This record gives sequence, C-alpha cells and structure tokens, in this order.
Amino acid sequence: MTIQQLISKKRLKKELTNEEIEFWIKGVAKNEFQDYELAALLMAITINGMTEAETTKLTIEMANSGKMMDLSKIEGIKADKHSTGGISDTTTIALVPILADLGLKMVKMSGRSLGFTGGTIDKLEAIDGFNTEISEKKFIDGVKKVGASIMAQTQDVAVADKKLYALRDVTDTVQSIPLIASSIMSKKLASGADIILLDVKFGEGAFMKTAKDATTLAKAMVKIGKNAGRKMCAIITSMEQPLGNGIGCTLEIRDAVEVLNGAQNRLSEVVIAICVEILKLAYGYSDAVAKEKVLNSISSGSALNKLKEIVKNQDGNEEIISDLSLLKKAAHTKVLKAENNGKIVAINGEMLGEACKLLGGGRIKKGEPILHEVGIDMKVALNDDVTTDTDLVNIHYNDKKNLDEIIKMIYGAFTISSTKKSVKTKLINKIVR
Amino acid sequence: MTIQQLISKKRLKKELTNEEIEFWIKGVAKNEFQDYELAALLMAITINGMTEAETTKLTIEMANSGKMMDLSKIEGIKADKHSTGGISDTTTIALVPILADLGLKMVKMSGRSLGFTGGTIDKLEAIDGFNTEISEKKFIDGVKKVGASIMAQTQDVAVADKKLYALRDVTDTVQSIPLIASSIMSKKLASGADIILLDVKFGEGAFMKTAKDATTLAKAMVKIGKNAGRKMCAIITSMEQPLGNGIGCTLEIRDAVEVLNGAQNRLSEVVIAICVEILKLAYGYSDAVAKEKVLNSISSGSALNKLKEIVKNQDGNEEIISDLSLLKKAAHTKVLKAENNGKIVAINGEMLGEACKLLGGGRIKKGEPILHEVGIDMKVALNDDVTTDTDLVNIHYNDKKNLDEIIKMIYGAFTISSTKKSVKTKLINKIVR
Repeated sequence: MTIQQLISKKRLKKELTNEEIEFWIKGVAKNEFQDYELAALLMAITINGMTEAETTKLTIEMANSGKMMDLSKIEGIKADKHSTGGISDTTTIALVPILADLGLKMVKMSGRSLGFTGGTIDKLEAIDGFNTEISEKKFIDGVKKVGASIMAQTQDVAVADKKLYALRDVTDTVQSIPLIASSIMSKKLASGADIILLDVKFGEGAFMKTAKDATTLAKAMVKIGKNAGRKMCAIITSMEQPLGNGIGCTLEIRDAVEVLNGAQNRLSEVVIAICVEILKLAYGYSDAVAKEKVLNSISSGSALNKLKEIVKNQDGNEEIISDLSLLKKAAHTKVLKAENNGKIVAINGEMLGEACKLLGGGRIKKGEPILHEVGIDMKVALNDDVTTDTDLVNIHYNDKKNLDEIIKMIYGAFTISSTKKSVKTKLINKIVR
Repeated sequence: MTIQQLISKKRLKKELTNEEIEFWIKGVAKNEFQDYELAALLMAITINGMTEAETTKLTIEMANSGKMMDLSKIEGIKADKHSTGGISDTTTIALVPILADLGLKMVKMSGRSLGFTGGTIDKLEAIDGFNTEISEKKFIDGVKKVGASIMAQTQDVAVADKKLYALRDVTDTVQSIPLIASSIMSKKLASGADIILLDVKFGEGAFMKTAKDATTLAKAMVKIGKNAGRKMCAIITSMEQPLGNGIGCTLEIRDAVEVLNGAQNRLSEVVIAICVEILKLAYGYSDAVAKEKVLNSISSGSALNKLKEIVKNQDGNEEIISDLSLLKKAAHTKVLKAENNGKIVAINGEMLGEACKLLGGGRIKKGEPILHEVGIDMKVALNDDVTTDTDLVNIHYNDKKNLDEIIKMIYGAFTISSTKKSVKTKLINKIVR
C-alpha cells in the first residue's frame, strides 16, 4: 500500500477502506509521509468529500493515534460538552456544576484559546489558585470525589490530528465538513466520555457562518459519535451577539456564577438547554422532568455549592464564588454611552472580541499570558432601545495604550438605527440528536 | 497576494487572473513556496480544472521561467514536432530530413527517455560520433547551414515546469489535461518554432488510453499554441501495436532510414501525414501538392541525402546512412517462432518495451547509459496469419542474463487466436487543427 494509491482514490472520489485509513493515520503519527503527499490527499478530500464510514474510521484512528483517557475507574455516567467557540461563551463553567450536582460525572478537557478571548481554562485560572494543569490521577480522583474535573488538554491527545490540522491551516483545507468533524470528534473520543454534547455555533463571529452549515457539521459529528458507541446530541446556537454580558475572563466567571444564582438571560437559556439534553440522554428523563431538576439544582443553591467544591478540589479560592468582588480587578473602568438614539439592530461579536484581545484579554501567539481582569461588560442587547444617555458598555482596562482605537472598535461593533424594526432572533436554532 | 488565496480560488473552482498565475509561477521558479502549498494547489487544479485562458497563461509563464530559444537569426519558417511517446516511434528521424529538404527550418530539442526504450537523442547517438550535446550557437548554425539541428534539451528550459512536474509525479496530480498540456507546451514554446506539430498517441502502451482522451489533450495543446501565436496541428495516432518494426535504438535508426529509402509501412504512413500537415501550415499547400512534394523528396533520394548532411553536420558518421551494416551490432540474435497457428489479434507494445528495457535497451534511472545495439525486431504485425513455422521476432541481445524471462515476456505480448476475426485498426485516428 502506498500513500499515492490513497491520493489517487480520493482524487477519483472513491471510498477508502478501513485498512487504508489505518495505514494513512498510523503513518502520519509516525511521520512516514511527506507534507506534500498529505497536502494533496487533504485537498482531494476537501473537494471530493468522505463517506460517513470513512469519516468515522478516520476519527477513531486519529483518537487512537494519541493518548486515550481511561475512565473505567469512574463509576456512573461520564459526560463531556464541547463548543465550537463563540464570544462570551461561558456555558461550560455554569453547566458542569449543575450536572455534577445531578449525579453525572463531568469529565472536561479544555483548550486555551487562540482566538479573541480566553478559553475555559483561561477563565478558570481567573479564580485565584485554580489549577488546570493536573495529572490524570488527580483528574480522575476529582471526578470520583466531587463529580467533575476540568483540565487543560495535554499535547499527547490525537497526535495525528494535530499534525494534519497544522497542515490544513496552510493548505486551505480547513473548510471540509468531514475533516472538521473528525478533528473535533477525535479529541472527544479520546476524552472517554459516554455522553458527548456539542454546542455548534453559527454566525458572523463563528467558524460556521450559517445555521445550515452548522447543522451539517453537527449531524456529521453526531453520526461519528454514535458510530463509535457514544450517546450524542448537538445544539445549534446563534452567535448574532455575544452569548453572555461579559467579554473577558473574570467577567465571564461572573456571568457563569450569576446563572447559578438564578439569573435568566441568553447564557442561562443555553446552559439549561444543554443540561436538559444531557440529562435526557443519561437518565431517559422527559423534557419537563429534566428541566425541573435543573431549575431546582439552581434555585436550591446546590449547583453553586457544587461549583465551590469543584473550585476547592482544584486548589482554587472557593470564597470567590460567594463573593465575586474578590476577583482581581482591572486598574480602570470606563463607561461608553450610546452615540445616538435608536434601536440596536446589530452587534458584531467578532469586533468586540478583537477589542478585548487589544486590551490584553486574548492571546496572539501560543503560550502567551493573558490578562484575566480586562474586558468589556455589555450593558445592552440586540433590539434594545437606547438614547445617548444609555450605557452601552463598561470597559475594564489596565492602561491607556490603544484605548482610543479600542473605543472606536467597540462603537463600530454596535449598529443603532432610528428607522429599522426589531431583528428576529432565535438563540437555539435546532437540536440534532 | 498569497499562495493560499490561489489555493482557495482553485478549491472553489474559480478562475485565476493573469497576475495570480504570474505570482505562482515566478514564485515556483524562485523556490518561494512550500511543496505542500503547491501540492494542494495542483490537486485542486487536477480535480477542478483550468479554463483555456488560465492554461495558456500558465504555459507562457512556465516557458518564461527558463531559457527561451532565440531563433531570430534563422531566416525562413521554423518548425518543431513533438510526440507524447510511443513504442518504436522513430518518426522524428525520418521526417526532419524530408522537411529540411523541402525548405523548412527544423529545430528539434529532444529528451532522453526514461521509458522502455531510448528517446530520439539516444537513437541518434547509435550513429557513431553523432553529437547531441551541442551549444546553442552550433544548434542555430546547423539549422542555417543544413536546415535542421537536433539537440538534447538542456536543464534550463521551463524551470518552473520541471519543479512542478517532479511534485505532480509524487502527488497523483499527473492526470490533469490542463497540467499535461501546459507542461508539454511550455517546453515547445520555449523552443521558439513558428509551427508546432504534436503527435498524440493513445492506447494501452501510451500515456492517454483512449482516442477521446488523446483528442481532448491535443485540442487543449493546439489552443494554447494558437493563443501564444504559433501555427498548430495535432495528429492522433494509435499505439495498438509498435509503430515501426524495430524496438531499440539501432533497429529504429534502420526503420527511419528505410522510410527514406521508400519503404511503405505504418511508420511511413505517420511520417508522411505529419510532413503533409506541416507543409500545409507552412506554405498553404493543398493535401495533394504537399503529399506529392513529400513523396518526391523521398523517391528522388533528396531526403536521404539531407539526413546524411544532418548527421555529418553533428559529427556523426554519415556513411552509416548508406550502409546500415556499419551500425554497432548486438553480440547475438535469436529468432522466436510463433507458438501456435492462427491470427495475431493483439500485440502489447508496453510489454515488448519492457522486454527491450530488460535487454539493456532502456534506462531505469536518469543518466544511466543504455545499449543502442540491443532490441527486438518484429517480423509480424497485427492481423497477420502465422503458423508455428513463422518468425515472430528476432531478439538482438548481448548476454544471456534474463533471456528466458525476456523470451517469456515477448511471447506474452502476442495474442494468437485460431478463432477470432481480424481486428479493426486505424493508425491515424484524427487530425486536430
């Protein structure tokens, strides 16, 4: 078998066999192929596609190419949740304690973001002392003890995926549904959970631009997961505006805690919907029962207590959860008022994320430190009526460098119209089971 | 402009602009791109194709990426002929003297074959003293003096094509009509001739398997040439059996000389057809007039004399042309008789070429020497009736090593049937103008 034979088959839109996909991915992990050979193969796949069987096998092989988490020592139903990434998306931090409180074993390996704002790991590190760089043993012990552990994903997971992803990035072969789906799912399969819930975002600021594309990707991932023996669900959510109010690590920790304190907003809507779907998959509850359990976990204060337990178990200062004023603060804040009277008809989350990055709240290069305390606190939402007296945002910043440019970007992110009607919004577009 | 933008356009089947193609090919010549970037681009092109405008621009840029022959010092109409490669195809050596005799300026740069048997350059070197590694000055002086020069193509022609071809070979992107057409035509444009005649072969042993594919390629090349201001014609010929009788350098020199001595066979049919087409393009002759001139050049002995002049001008022993017994001989010959009675219904030229290579008459690695004197002399043709008393071939060989295997291969190349009817054959399938 040669890699050229595989390239030829995909060039002619033929289906690769299991043995061929094994040969390919094992070879990638062992650095046996030239980058130009893999680039040709990836382009042929990007244009000609892959079947469900091919995509599933590719995903399983990529998962097997690195470390596979062994969760067999954890009793109970293990669940994981993954988001394709959005602005002010802090659902994980709110939903993990709710589901742990309701008996699920939450195994969460997260990345540090390379995007506009921090990832889940960065956000948790805004809590003084919180340790995300824990050993596998501590990870498993934590799940057994408090029902949840959250750790930074290690470099040895899905090794072949990492290599192929680096090549896709420079050969314009990123935009392939089977390749995106297998890349995401290979890491999820390696994490070892029984239930995997995917939050697939769409909109200007998201990777998938339309609900249709997001649904296609979600369906592909759900199929892979099911074929690999996992319980699967995907929720398709809109990124037409930032999900929470805060953009920046400490502000997003605050948003998550507010949901556990009973706040009702866009963030809580998504958190509750995800919890409901996972509970249904885990215990066969009806929608109504699942929702009641979730609301009860929040209103009783159990979920908030569970978050404190999780924080304490990973060496964080759990007092912060009861008293958010203990979170590190930026040196200065500055309120921006709306520039005109009218209705907010568009909010460009991508631009706000970019502004947060300029404040120091996101990283440009891998491994860079980020400022947890800076960010943008939104005071308005889509379809709000505003006057020049209305607070638009409160900027949390440390130094004045770039501030004028940042203010300009923030104003640019809001479209205020005195003539346009309300925009139709639908946060949760669809659920793919 | 980045190469990723070009990759993206071709992935999405969009047309590259002239500026983009210039950026690509100039960058290739200067080694500015990574092989994996070029591999992705070549695969996208192989699957999604290129427009006529793109293909023409690519060809011109590839020609410009290396040395362009300056034939301006040569008066008269300069003509070139190219074959896509076939077994026992020695048309060039027969037609160059005919056309030079009839007033055309024949400028012929040829390759050394990497295939089964030698290329035109190898065949000419079977003539004692013939020098194909001549300077540009000697090349041009030769054309001015005797009407024709034949030299080995130098490494500095179409530099970008060489680099891309090497990459196509290992990324399964060889089978792309626009890429094949532009690769061949870039070298032809660089050679500088006013008239370019292409002999596009099809059949089992040829690069193009069917007359349809060969015609598609021919049309693409003819268009490129016309767009670049050259007079173009392509002849589509069948490789259902070796073109001449001999397979091997000295045997093919003999075949060419026999055509100039008036032999009427498949080889002469193609030689005459090509001469007629070039004469029509050069002088606007009718078919009948052109053919009469060609036949007269042969029957009068002028063409044969012209070959002697060409050979002498390039330091070869022209006596050989009058007395083929002076050609170097293999140490032994061995006649193979037909194995059964019946009709020859198939001849596998590829297998005979492979046998010739095993005799030492073809090269496996670039730069290897080859034995001019060995080869296979065919004594039969398609549709001949044979008995076990009929000579099938005469093998010219130097040592017995591999001889049993070679004999087996040769027998395997002939299909003799006692029941099948004659095979329909059509040597010249079509002419594309």
